[in-house]
Amino acid sequence: MKPIILTGDRPTGPLHLGHYVGSLKNRVAFQETYEQYLIIADAQALTDNFDHPERIRENIMQVALDYLAVGLDPQRNTFFVQSRIPELLELSFYFMNLVTVSRVQRNPTIKEEIRQKEMGESLPVGFFVYPISQAADILAFHTDVVPIGEDQKPMIEQTNEIARKFNSVYGVNCFKEVRPIIGQVGRLPGIDGKTKMSKSLGNAIFLCDSADEIRRKVNLMFTDPNHLRIEDPGKVEGNVVFMFLDFFDPNKTELEELKAHYRRGGLGDSTVKRRLVDILESLIGPIRERRAAYERDLGYVRQILETGSEKARAVVAAKVKEAKEAMKLF
Amino acid sequence: MKPIILTGDRPTGPLHLGHYVGSLKNRVAFQETYEQYLIIADAQALTDNFDHPERIRENIMQVALDYLAVGLDPQRNTFFVQSRIPELLELSFYFMNLVTVSRVQRNPTIKEEIRQKEMGESLPVGFFVYPISQAADILAFHTDVVPIGEDQKPMIEQTNEIARKFNSVYGVNCFKEVRPIIGQVGRLPGIDGKTKMSKSLGNAIFLCDSADEIRRKVNLMFTDPNHLRIEDPGKVEGNVVFMFLDFFDPNKTELEELKAHYRRGGLGDSTVKRRLVDILESLIGPIRERRAAYERDLGYVRQILETGSEKARAVVAAKVKEAKEAMKLF
Repeated sequence: MKPIILTGDRPTGPLHLGHYVGSLKNRVAFQETYEQYLIIADAQALTDNFDHPERIRENIMQVALDYLAVGLDPQRNTFFVQSRIPELLELSFYFMNLVTVSRVQRNPTIKEEIRQKEMGESLPVGFFVYPISQAADILAFHTDVVPIGEDQKPMIEQTNEIARKFNSVYGVNCFKEVRPIIGQVGRLPGIDGKTKMSKSLGNAIFLCDSADEIRRKVNLMFTDPNHLRIEDPGKVEGNVVFMFLDFFDPNKTELEELKAHYRRGGLGDSTVKRRLVDILESLIGPIRERRAAYERDLGYVRQILETGSEKARAVVAAKVKEAKEAMKLF
Repeated sequence: MKPIILTGDRPTGPLHLGHYVGSLKNRVAFQETYEQYLIIADAQALTDNFDHPERIRENIMQVALDYLAVGLDPQRNTFFVQSRIPELLELSFYFMNLVTVSRVQRNPTIKEEIRQKEMGESLPVGFFVYPISQAADILAFHTDVVPIGEDQKPMIEQTNEIARKFNSVYGVNCFKEVRPIIGQVGRLPGIDGKTKMSKSLGNAIFLCDSADEIRRKVNLMFTDPNHLRIEDPGKVEGNVVFMFLDFFDPNKTELEELKAHYRRGGLGDSTVKRRLVDILESLIGPIRERRAAYERDLGYVRQILETGSEKARAVVAAKVKEAKEAMKLF
């Protein structure tokens, strides 16, 4: 029996290089040694997109295509759609009894997201309670491991608190505490150099971008504003093109030589950008091709989601039945 | 097609005379002209009793027995257990997106309950969101009418806000606004004269109390502390025995004569109490007998809950399917 991973995405847009670096690449590696459940969290995405349901709807398929395109194997992973498993929402309803309002208010991740999204008075209850719903998603699969970013540690603490509290209140061993794997890689910036690549910030390179779009976006990247002539010495730090090369250039020796050359002068921005375009295209090209192949057979993709959701639902239903028995509801 | 009523109880204890006066008596009348759904709200009861699941569990049957004993006909009413309908919890999950945290915080009913239960920092999220869950219970049945007490008006306003918001956000006519019927009868005090009869205050006369228990409880009632000898004039106002007679004495003319006699002196407390005992016994006696008959056939009672829950689930599932389609979840 392989250990179980629960991971996934909100279907709010097609996935981009930030997702690739931060999670998709790892998932492709994890599928060798873990049983991986991939949640496409449409119900959770609705909590702050409730007035754009069609956006969520369309992107379920986009995310599934991206998963397949990067090499996530539907034979070795379970792809599923959250809203297809009402038992997950049922479980989160019961978990809400085990968490106080003030505990959620103290959750740093939630605090920060509310601040960022400037929700304030307009904060929907659904969004406020999402750490609890996420805990249900995780615990329902008897998950061993959740790969996360550093900023999501409080979510895992909350999840484990709920597991412990449920088990102790009801005198059972129904839910297992999970172990986070925290990504060691830094966060990929946007093409504008801002701290985070994000669809809503308009600074993303998507895994479905064409070669032309990649070239156009790399050409938009800031380099060193004082590096005006090729022969001038240039700065590598804060230079968006080199920031990307640090993430994607497979040849670290050549990259160091390139940086030295750029620093002492004589290396043009266009040469460096061409190198980045080639590297990104050699990464994204095959992804784009596989994506196109799956796009020609959407019925097959739908079937994968169908089969996966059914399998996931059976797992969750059994766990929720166990939880309800513990709560004397049967 | 009869108009639809949704009403019910949290199964936190057997029902008492306060329930009889405030709701059960009306429900018996309503069953003639309405299609009545009777929810035994175990999932909701867990929100502030999560650590006593066995108490909720046991009382599901007690409440069902009380319903049958007062004359609610399982052929004309649908008895159902809330936790048996996960779709209700699913629906409340989606409704949470349509209500802001600050809106719930401003709900006067919730504010007052939190104050009364002295929850403060320990307020569970599940209890905090119960107005939303209650809205789901009501709206899922395409309910026309909800009989409530004056203090629950804000809950109905909240429910109708959700119905309107769902319909307008998703451009559908999925949920119908409900009309409250506000009970005209005042609130029955406890046997200690406190404003509310309640199991937790230990001042209740239960519908399953024996004749001896009724006598004992009536004998505990305060009368007029200055009415020491039979010939003394007595006060009727604030006299718990007369407060009860006001509710239950079917012969208002005799009651007025009795009050006049008590006021001018010459009428002993024990005479008045005997009258109340007789009246209560003539009300509760037949209820107790019917209850005992059903208790000898618990399998039949379980079957009523089973059949009712299945019927109710089908109604709710169809409505939730319609709501999910509106939210593009299918």
